[in-house]
Amino acid sequence: MELARSPLATPFPKMPEIGGVTLRIARARYKEWDRADLTFAEFAEGTAVAGVFTQSACPSNEVEMGREQVKHGKARALIVNAGNANAFTGYRGREAVEQIAEQVAAHLDCVPAEVFVSSTGVIGVPLPKDKARDGVDAALNAEPCSWEDAANTIATTDTFAKGATASAMVGGTRVEISAIIKGSGMIAPDMATMLGYIFTDAAIDPAFLQEILSEANRRTFSCITVDSDTSTSDTVLAFATGAAGNAPIRSYDDDGADAFAAALHDVCLQLAQSVVRDGEGASKFIEISVSGADSDESARKIGLSVANSPLLKTAIAGQDANWGRVVMAVGKAGEPADRDRLSIGFGGIWAAKNGQPVPDYDEEPVARHLQGQDITIEIDIGIGGGSATVWTCDLTHGYIDINADYRS
Amino acid sequence: MELARSPLATPFPKMPEIGGVTLRIARARYKEWDRADLTFAEFAEGTAVAGVFTQSACPSNEVEMGREQVKHGKARALIVNAGNANAFTGYRGREAVEQIAEQVAAHLDCVPAEVFVSSTGVIGVPLPKDKARDGVDAALNAEPCSWEDAANTIATTDTFAKGATASAMVGGTRVEISAIIKGSGMIAPDMATMLGYIFTDAAIDPAFLQEILSEANRRTFSCITVDSDTSTSDTVLAFATGAAGNAPIRSYDDDGADAFAAALHDVCLQLAQSVVRDGEGASKFIEISVSGADSDESARKIGLSVANSPLLKTAIAGQDANWGRVVMAVGKAGEPADRDRLSIGFGGIWAAKNGQPVPDYDEEPVARHLQGQDITIEIDIGIGGGSATVWTCDLTHGYIDINADYRS
Repeated sequence: MELARSPLATPFPKMPEIGGVTLRIARARYKEWDRADLTFAEFAEGTAVAGVFTQSACPSNEVEMGREQVKHGKARALIVNAGNANAFTGYRGREAVEQIAEQVAAHLDCVPAEVFVSSTGVIGVPLPKDKARDGVDAALNAEPCSWEDAANTIATTDTFAKGATASAMVGGTRVEISAIIKGSGMIAPDMATMLGYIFTDAAIDPAFLQEILSEANRRTFSCITVDSDTSTSDTVLAFATGAAGNAPIRSYDDDGADAFAAALHDVCLQLAQSVVRDGEGASKFIEISVSGADSDESARKIGLSVANSPLLKTAIAGQDANWGRVVMAVGKAGEPADRDRLSIGFGGIWAAKNGQPVPDYDEEPVARHLQGQDITIEIDIGIGGGSATVWTCDLTHGYIDINADYRS
Repeated sequence: MELARSPLATPFPKMPEIGGVTLRIARARYKEWDRADLTFAEFAEGTAVAGVFTQSACPSNEVEMGREQVKHGKARALIVNAGNANAFTGYRGREAVEQIAEQVAAHLDCVPAEVFVSSTGVIGVPLPKDKARDGVDAALNAEPCSWEDAANTIATTDTFAKGATASAMVGGTRVEISAIIKGSGMIAPDMATMLGYIFTDAAIDPAFLQEILSEANRRTFSCITVDSDTSTSDTVLAFATGAAGNAPIRSYDDDGADAFAAALHDVCLQLAQSVVRDGEGASKFIEISVSGADSDESARKIGLSVANSPLLKTAIAGQDANWGRVVMAVGKAGEPADRDRLSIGFGGIWAAKNGQPVPDYDEEPVARHLQGQDITIEIDIGIGGGSATVWTCDLTHGYIDINADYRS
């Protein structure tokens, strides 16, 4: 099935090169297609790494191995296979990953544990070792490529290439961050959705990089949903080469740490939102702001309960300001709430306040807001100081088309 | 929008009358329609009652009041309003419920706390007191009606009337159970979905009735899902008139208690499955059996995670034996699981065992099974002795049509 470009797509940004990072792509032909599907990123010696991974109890081999690797904090290379997720493939899948790591390590003269591998695509089929060997061999010897080429190569059923960039001043030195991501819901091939890679020339301690990446993750990647389904392969890795030459950042006490953390957060937010904008069948981008909750975490859970409600998402698709469905989704979140203090708005206009419809509520400006592509929903729980913002898309016939008819 | 009768619909069963129960219906005209929308059930003095209610943190007035009322264990009447859920309506909504209870209590010469009220339909609009008064007045004076008439009158957007019946021998006396239910997902009007009423002529202590109803609920109503959305109005009430004249059942030690509990469970299961068969847009009825889990409750949670997965539900709609999506949904359930012990089958045929595809797996008989209307999915977690069965339906374009376009 040929997928139409998302109406919410944004152009690929201009992104600076990152000192110490070289990108190359090749055709491993993991599927019956004639496109690049293997991405190789090479990093300068001394590159630090941090990562966040899926919470799934049934993760892929790649995720299991990646979790162990980031503990050492050092990376020399990244290989991303598109077209085969290598998930649910037992020991044979694991052997394929080990083969790739050893092949790249021999080429770069490093240890295999410094080679990170991700795979995305169909499941239940072990990654074919011969195709992987030939593909890696071609990638090791290919010419360097652009960010957009790499972003297209890690993609599977994404409808547009996704990147993000930001910079920060660290003790008088400007450091750059460039990042790419793939994902558009748990789209089939469905075991491999969100894979994100962040590259920076900043010099930063891997433990601190892990701290600020985990922090950014909580308010960005962990605050988006397309269909509530959780991938077995979700992975975001951040690589820091140190080529900018700044005084290494080791904690929030260091010069420029706040600025760098803010830039990293900004990049994660751009990436996360771009995944929502490529949500399967999405026609509207929805921002849900929750305030007055028992805690920030409670606000996030309530926001995701609303963002995951099929009823709310279909109502938005139908441009229907159905605030009753918001009440319903708040009620089912399992978090502290009081019906008689709850207020709900769309596009900045309150429809219900303190558990009752607003007197003389005029639905006309709200209806106009819902005709747009970017929708906001405001929820005030009215019982505390916790707040959070989450992002999702609407649920349309396109989602059914993509997911019911994929293999036919 | 006129809804087509569900392809999974079953005929309304022949159900015996229940001694001590009289049903009447009337037209309160809560909406612009010309149909009966108010149901009145009158119970003999001494009728016991038990109930289970929505877990929503934002329940309707009716649910809040009903929770208090069942604690006393006695009922003389039930009023069900269709077309207005009276939810999120503050004190005005509560006043309307109190008015109804007082009006019926005066007629029957009982206390208002013995009059149970349910409402289902649009939200955010207080139940109009004048229509309620006239409707109740008409119902109190109407001729008795049939089970099917009552089942149609409590319905809103259901596409077929739903009932269930069973009987049991209690110490040499045959007791009967007849029951009706409405619901087809969180269909708009969306604050009022599943309302179920069970009537029996058995003599039974209300505390024991509550015990076995709660128990049956855990394995029936709590094991179904259409779209994962939780109503603010969900209510199931059981009324026992004692007209059969059996020696009252007070505990599992009493004659016939096991038989009666089994009959009650059977009725709850029939009702629960009929709601799934009227799931919005449903074209397939799906039974998911989970075994080998850490505990029964863990098995239920895993089953519901699978049953609520939009990806799995769209795959079934597309007749696609996509077991990778089952792995995904098991992984995201947050319950103990081990990828390398997990086995998955469709229609009794294993597709994957112990974390890998079955060698020489033949998809043809599985594809044939998925072309039918009644689908089974088998999941063996492989780590313990816990098991559960849950029921759901597929996710189709019909769901989007119903929920996106409802108010247009």
